[in-house]
Amino acid sequence: MISRNDIALAQRLADAAGAEIRPLFRSGLDGEAKQDASPVTKADRAAEAIMRRLLEAEASADGIHGEEFGVKEGVSGRQWVLDPIDGTTAFLAGRPIFGTLIALLVDGFPVLGVIDQPISGERWLGVSGRQTLFNGEPVSCRPCPDLAAATIATTGPHYFSVPQGDAFMALAGQTDHKRMVMGGDCYNYGCLASGNLDVVAEAGLKLHDYAALVPVVEGAGGVMSDWRGEPLHAGSDGTVLALGDPARLEDVVEILSGAAG
Amino acid sequence: MISRNDIALAQRLADAAGAEIRPLFRSGLDGEAKQDASPVTKADRAAEAIMRRLLEAEASADGIHGEEFGVKEGVSGRQWVLDPIDGTTAFLAGRPIFGTLIALLVDGFPVLGVIDQPISGERWLGVSGRQTLFNGEPVSCRPCPDLAAATIATTGPHYFSVPQGDAFMALAGQTDHKRMVMGGDCYNYGCLASGNLDVVAEAGLKLHDYAALVPVVEGAGGVMSDWRGEPLHAGSDGTVLALGDPARLEDVVEILSGAAG
Repeated sequence: MISRNDIALAQRLADAAGAEIRPLFRSGLDGEAKQDASPVTKADRAAEAIMRRLLEAEASADGIHGEEFGVKEGVSGRQWVLDPIDGTTAFLAGRPIFGTLIALLVDGFPVLGVIDQPISGERWLGVSGRQTLFNGEPVSCRPCPDLAAATIATTGPHYFSVPQGDAFMALAGQTDHKRMVMGGDCYNYGCLASGNLDVVAEAGLKLHDYAALVPVVEGAGGVMSDWRGEPLHAGSDGTVLALGDPARLEDVVEILSGAAG
Repeated sequence: MISRNDIALAQRLADAAGAEIRPLFRSGLDGEAKQDASPVTKADRAAEAIMRRLLEAEASADGIHGEEFGVKEGVSGRQWVLDPIDGTTAFLAGRPIFGTLIALLVDGFPVLGVIDQPISGERWLGVSGRQTLFNGEPVSCRPCPDLAAATIATTGPHYFSVPQGDAFMALAGQTDHKRMVMGGDCYNYGCLASGNLDVVAEAGLKLHDYAALVPVVEGAGGVMSDWRGEPLHAGSDGTVLALGDPARLEDVVEILSGAAG
């Protein structure tokens, strides 16, 4: 279903996006610049524009769904989903843990995903049915035989509704919450695929925020779903759960499902 | 007060700590290893041990206050304060935004500080009365004429008491909280010194967590204090505030001071 050419194209998209983003990181424009002139907006637009140009040249039958420039319908049943900068607040704060997200969906389900960190030069590549690669080397999620020993991450409690925040805290209370980490955006899912985190739970995500994460996490042996335990696809409700050890899914969904969107 | 030799020694301490830490980052031991065998504990101890050996060889009259191996009294009125890994949860999660903190205190007040990120090779160096350097280049905090446009950061709400959390949220509500970032530990203070963040507020910090931050932030034109606005020193209460623009201190302290320790 996914060809070598698709993978090579995804890598070229990430390379091209990174080349646009790097000069604008910590570029010294202050946080009060008008939105249309802010470095993150410039970087977001320039990176998505170059990716769209490459796709239109090399995969013109495929649809494109980009965070910045919207949807171009395709005729192939395939759709590229682009988030040039996931973690705009991290980018603005000067943290090199934001990411460029590139996904290929077939019939609405993600089958290829890239999480690229252009400052540190880190890239996770996931393809359905293959082992996830981190900078070309295979990586695996770690086992988590007991939630009480799990490390949990989320970007911030301010992204939850009140019931979602309550459900997250109930879940965090079952884990080793001394090791809970906040912040991180897409980078958390890469860390989970590399076996450094056990649980990531978020809400309010859009398709471009989560599509690329699914093949990365699942190709490393983990599982992704919404908070009801259902597979993520183009019409999901925005609640997102990643587990390094699929054996913990039932327990976690029992805690979160009441607050799903 | 601070000599060229002191600065060179601080740099050598950071170099030596980084060489111990790098091989253990994402070293594949899982999160459930016994505490005494965990990669972060190994890295913490090895990095502090090598720094203490250097100090005992080259600054034997100075005191040492290390997170891992406690206090050695000195006879010079000077004390080196060491936190080999600030941000142990970030280290465990695989995020390259933890840091090695090295401070030199004279009569209990920090006059030299290093924030070193050994994975990305980033280092902030602050010395009383001098401009802060980031990888050898001068950096400055940015002005923040209005709190409503400020970006605020904190490592996580789970480190606050209930009144501290309420005070932080009252402050966050006055800022551009769409851009609030969580996580980050010492790295946030480096980002503030480089002009990418405006406010960092935390609580429950120990001397080894905050001593090195003060010369870095103040040498970049910012201000650090406890939540009452008092200068940080060896006996502070653990509430910590950093502002890139000292003109905002009075307003922020008015919001936070009721919840100081």
